[in-house]
Amino acid sequence: MATQRTRLTPMKTNPGRFFEDYRLGETIRHATPRTVTSGDVALYTALYGSRFAVQSSDAFARAIGYPRSPLDDLLTFHVVFGKTVPDISLNALANLGYAEGGFRRPVYPGETLSTVSEVIGLKESSNRQTGVVYVRSTGSDEKGETVLSYCRWVLVRKRDPEATIAQEHVPTFAKVVDPSDLAGALPPLDASAYDLELAGSPHRFADYQAGEKIDHVDGMTVEEAEHQIATRLYQNTAKVHFDAVATRETKFGKRLIYGGHVISLARALSFNGLANAFALAGINAGRHVAPLFAGDTVYAWSEVVERAELPGRTDIGALRLRTVATKNQPCGAYPDRQGEGYDPAVILDLDYWAFIPR
Amino acid sequence: MATQRTRLTPMKTNPGRFFEDYRLGETIRHATPRTVTSGDVALYTALYGSRFAVQSSDAFARAIGYPRSPLDDLLTFHVVFGKTVPDISLNALANLGYAEGGFRRPVYPGETLSTVSEVIGLKESSNRQTGVVYVRSTGSDEKGETVLSYCRWVLVRKRDPEATIAQEHVPTFAKVVDPSDLAGALPPLDASAYDLELAGSPHRFADYQAGEKIDHVDGMTVEEAEHQIATRLYQNTAKVHFDAVATRETKFGKRLIYGGHVISLARALSFNGLANAFALAGINAGRHVAPLFAGDTVYAWSEVVERAELPGRTDIGALRLRTVATKNQPCGAYPDRQGEGYDPAVILDLDYWAFIPR
Amino acid sequence: MATQRTRLTPMKTNPGRFFEDYRLGETIRHATPRTVTSGDVALYTALYGSRFAVQSSDAFARAIGYPRSPLDDLLTFHVVFGKTVPDISLNALANLGYAEGGFRRPVYPGETLSTVSEVIGLKESSNRQTGVVYVRSTGSDEKGETVLSYCRWVLVRKRDPEATIAQEHVPTFAKVVDPSDLAGALPPLDASAYDLELAGSPHRFADYQAGEKIDHVDGMTVEEAEHQIATRLYQNTAKVHFDAVATRETKFGKRLIYGGHVISLARALSFNGLANAFALAGINAGRHVAPLFAGDTVYAWSEVVERAELPGRTDIGALRLRTVATKNQPCGAYPDRQGEGYDPAVILDLDYWAFIPR
Repeated sequence: MATQRTRLTPMKTNPGRFFEDYRLGETIRHATPRTVTSGDVALYTALYGSRFAVQSSDAFARAIGYPRSPLDDLLTFHVVFGKTVPDISLNALANLGYAEGGFRRPVYPGETLSTVSEVIGLKESSNRQTGVVYVRSTGSDEKGETVLSYCRWVLVRKRDPEATIAQEHVPTFAKVVDPSDLAGALPPLDASAYDLELAGSPHRFADYQAGEKIDHVDGMTVEEAEHQIATRLYQNTAKVHFDAVATRETKFGKRLIYGGHVISLARALSFNGLANAFALAGINAGRHVAPLFAGDTVYAWSEVVERAELPGRTDIGALRLRTVATKNQPCGAYPDRQGEGYDPAVILDLDYWAFIPR
Repeated sequence: MATQRTRLTPMKTNPGRFFEDYRLGETIRHATPRTVTSGDVALYTALYGSRFAVQSSDAFARAIGYPRSPLDDLLTFHVVFGKTVPDISLNALANLGYAEGGFRRPVYPGETLSTVSEVIGLKESSNRQTGVVYVRSTGSDEKGETVLSYCRWVLVRKRDPEATIAQEHVPTFAKVVDPSDLAGALPPLDASAYDLELAGSPHRFADYQAGEKIDHVDGMTVEEAEHQIATRLYQNTAKVHFDAVATRETKFGKRLIYGGHVISLARALSFNGLANAFALAGINAGRHVAPLFAGDTVYAWSEVVERAELPGRTDIGALRLRTVATKNQPCGAYPDRQGEGYDPAVILDLDYWAFIPR
Repeated sequence: MATQRTRLTPMKTNPGRFFEDYRLGETIRHATPRTVTSGDVALYTALYGSRFAVQSSDAFARAIGYPRSPLDDLLTFHVVFGKTVPDISLNALANLGYAEGGFRRPVYPGETLSTVSEVIGLKESSNRQTGVVYVRSTGSDEKGETVLSYCRWVLVRKRDPEATIAQEHVPTFAKVVDPSDLAGALPPLDASAYDLELAGSPHRFADYQAGEKIDHVDGMTVEEAEHQIATRLYQNTAKVHFDAVATRETKFGKRLIYGGHVISLARALSFNGLANAFALAGINAGRHVAPLFAGDTVYAWSEVVERAELPGRTDIGALRLRTVATKNQPCGAYPDRQGEGYDPAVILDLDYWAFIPR
């Protein structure tokens, strides 16, 4: 009888998928649609201290043409991303990269988000212990309209090294998203009503130049409670973030901070230097270069990679930025790639487009 | 003059009641009515990572017949419970048990909750140093309609061991709440609109069998900041949760985590295996077997004790569950009662009814 | 080329102002207007455990004449204050004092706050390394109506000790704000509908007497995650609160807790003894006597300095209170000023008016 009971257990809990469980072209509808609220917005502010005026003030947002303050784009990202974890990365060993990310429209409190992922690539590792799963994840609102899509690829364990994979494929990604494809994400803005003083910086589109580097100066130390509260808010269930007992057996011996938490910290720090680049447009490429742990202090610097005018938009332009985050090392010296790798302090290298008033 | 000032002080602050201050049959209206909001809901998600679709998505809830997402039933429980602490358990040595809990209707953001307790039992301890106080606490909405009631009993210090008690009485409690009495708590659901994929599990009422055990697999490490934030959210003032200086002198030498925090952690963990058992119906019995401290990691497993069909309801059934939580020990071996006591890892044994679509 | 890039950097980030950058009479519009929401309210409750019935329950607030629950006045204070930090206190060595604070009207969720500061005093230190900057900061709603104003003065570094100051002035402040000037801040209350039992205390205006001291009994231990979450919620960017690496080089060697966090903790603790003094009216004087660090436990006591009737208001009166907070020492002995200084446990001495039903 005890045996019979035990036998039933595996049928009810989700052990996560292994590499050989994915099929090329398959579509996965992820669980737990989520209505985002002003409660989530308050928590996002409290967790990162973000200060972009459009996202902070309904009055400011309305003055320039929004119906009210939209969510910080990264809050949308984390909510959309969190849903994919139980199906995509529960048994992942590493989150390898992001590409072709596009924020399609602003999201407002009260909207319900859900996520679907398509398996767009599968590549077994040569040692046959693991494989890389490539997905395109699409977050949609209640009506099914896309609000965000992005590709990511993760290294996933195989349950059985002997298992064979029906069909492998390594997708190629655009090196850079075309920002003019994303400009429709923002309502037409009354840029003359955009109050630079209230926004916290006098610098508009034309004030930034390709090649310019900006040290964001400030640092933020992260506590276990903070990243756990954030990661649960996004309903991201990866146990590596939460379970101090289980992670004792891992390579790091402790809880690992959700990579998206680092992205949000770096983005909030980047306000000091990029205060008017208030909307994310697209993610060209992203890489978590090294892990972050509680007790570490995050710093960031950005490089303006290029500037793009947007056809038909005289109100805004796009800045292509590379924001690099470090741990426990201020960024006055712009720590960056080194030889084949990176300066040992670097933890994040994110290449993205942001919109900024002209 | 200094003496006179000091004399006035005890009149203004609440030192908490002692055992001899209670009278059998007395009714206590607790302070601080509380309007619950989407801010509380966001914090609840962030503190426990709960993923039940009905409570997470207004769209999902509406599709099956709710006007919008109701609060997690345990958030209602904690808010109702928190108010009782200044009057019932400020001088309590232990929270001994729960019984006859019933969730009478869903609670929505915007509603105001308040709590009244009736003293239904008093039993002095044989050493005359303490006594057990039994109360039935009832949480009501703004119109006075009951949303939740439950019994609990606590061990309370006497101020004066010589004090005599006018009338003692030990109440008896139903061993099991009748779930058909509680079925009216849920609106009629369109179970066909209940999307199992979005809910995160294919298992409906009929898929669970009495005797089945489910290891919920995941673990959650608790930080001081987290349980303090939670317990303050519920306006629970018991100093044992908050005061590191005062608790240095206690048996444990440190802050003790609110027992309800453990219940919510276990319930959130139980999503992995019970994703469709989205509504709590009643609490049959509950016991905090051992204390939890910051730094500990909570795991949980559940046993399906019985299944009950509900007269007149073809949409939902009730599962009687026993959820057992442990600290610092995964639950693959279902740690449970041992002889007179429990496996030393066990911290919670909660026997309750949950509703699940048929 | 690298040189050119680096040259651009100082133009984009805010290094904070130094003493010689201020001009007497100058007005500074601070960045980041902020819409406060029920999410902020939930976080405020969760961070301090405040239990005032008017701020906790829309139903309670409506019964006595408010349209709904107003924000805790200190949440308004922190949001208004936070905006001033990048312009006033980023290079401050110490927050020296507060005076002439007045809460002009209740603030409700959904309102947008912004802040303007006027430089009302400048006084270089005799060593010419630093100077004191005096500002009057005014928080306004979306229509520009004042909700709060207060003066504070901070000790700010000079960039260049040789720099000269065009015009110096040391303002004088009223020792006590006139509470009758502030009575208009509250709607006319139906004091007979004010339910003392639900509010948590039977003590009205007439029950308090000048000279009375109240030990608030309870203690609250503060964690790094908690004060960081609070301080970011207020968009207060002072690095001394957040950067464990940078603060290693400071006098204290660690992160310092935002002084306003201490004020809110003391105020929340003061509920136990002052439960009906639910609205702050004015701040007469305030001083952060010593710093607070994570791991410390805060206690508080209050003295009733005087009572004031308010012309034309039979519903409420004003209590002038001095609330003294300590760290790691309960307040049963009312630790206070000692000789020229203070009992070493004291961290805050706040002199303010609160309204209380008659």
